[in-house]
Amino acid sequence: MNLSHSAFPGSAEGLLESMRRRSQTGPRHLVEPGPDEGQRRQLFEAAATAPDHGQILPWRFVLIHAQARARLGRAFEQALLERDAAAGDDERGRAREKASRAPFLALAVVREGGDGQEHIRVHERMVSLGGALQNLLLMAYAQGFGAGLVSGLAMDSRALREFCALSEHERAVCFVAVGTVARGREPRQRPPVERLVSELAR
Amino acid sequence: MNLSHSAFPGSAEGLLESMRRRSQTGPRHLVEPGPDEGQRRQLFEAAATAPDHGQILPWRFVLIHAQARARLGRAFEQALLERDAAAGDDERGRAREKASRAPFLALAVVREGGDGQEHIRVHERMVSLGGALQNLLLMAYAQGFGAGLVSGLAMDSRALREFCALSEHERAVCFVAVGTVARGREPRQRPPVERLVSELAR
Repeated sequence: MNLSHSAFPGSAEGLLESMRRRSQTGPRHLVEPGPDEGQRRQLFEAAATAPDHGQILPWRFVLIHAQARARLGRAFEQALLERDAAAGDDERGRAREKASRAPFLALAVVREGGDGQEHIRVHERMVSLGGALQNLLLMAYAQGFGAGLVSGLAMDSRALREFCALSEHERAVCFVAVGTVARGREPRQRPPVERLVSELAR
Repeated sequence: MNLSHSAFPGSAEGLLESMRRRSQTGPRHLVEPGPDEGQRRQLFEAAATAPDHGQILPWRFVLIHAQARARLGRAFEQALLERDAAAGDDERGRAREKASRAPFLALAVVREGGDGQEHIRVHERMVSLGGALQNLLLMAYAQGFGAGLVSGLAMDSRALREFCALSEHERAVCFVAVGTVARGREPRQRPPVERLVSELAR
């Protein structure tokens, strides 16, 4: 049986080393060129291999192309005004500007219910989405790009929900941004295993 | 910059192919040998490379060794009795038996708050845990093992919470099981990209 399980390119050590080298790059440091159409497809195909209990596909992505960024910027500005009707021009400009960052920008959306599959609960749906995002990030790194996740207060705004045409049971979780890394960063320190594992041995 | 981004073993295509070949194996089909101590460490080190906004490490694993499985079995039985005080011997036996499956069994736990970092919300914490689990599953596959996630009604039980010594703000999300695959399965069909992506281009 194990023969069919030995198909990872490179060793387990190699995979671990790559996972460690991958780290978050914020959208402001992601520039052109971004992934082309074939690479975008690969990113989503990687996401599609996440665990998905009951195969209900409880999440989706809204890919926001260059032509839609000005409209996304207006949605971010509107989201700001929902929180602070008195926001000034500078702040509004900064909110709009965020929409122009990173060549690849997609909103990750989870469906929390409303599908007759409520026995698969929100936490389980989020594990599936988290797995999809991790796969997408690893694939972007393997393609030679940098990538990062971004959330923020706009996630719950009516403006963003309307812009992305979310349904009543859907929640905007975060954006995933991909592009060429404009500025390098030191690899991130990871927490030691001792911090994340407790053991029960009796 | 891209040089430091080309360190994935094998190509992006190879990584995608491996992600596709990996699929869920339920604990009942996972037998000895399981990961040894060094491999267990690698599994958790892979998990530790998940995105973690603010580096708050909002999750942990409780690794349940062989010597603790009988006690876990009694916790499962107790969890059943919390839901159905009239459960019969057969059902109680089946609940206990589940604790003996898979050589490697760890409970994934998310911390939902109580840490002064509540601006990092539950959904974001779950994205981090989902990423950690995906990395662990990929690493198990690269090591030549099968692996799977399991949840169920016991997750919310007082018995399991006490057994794993969860704190008030922690939630049991799922078990992750790893071992040698006893029975092969056809690779799973993945949803086509069209089902998981919408595009906004104006």
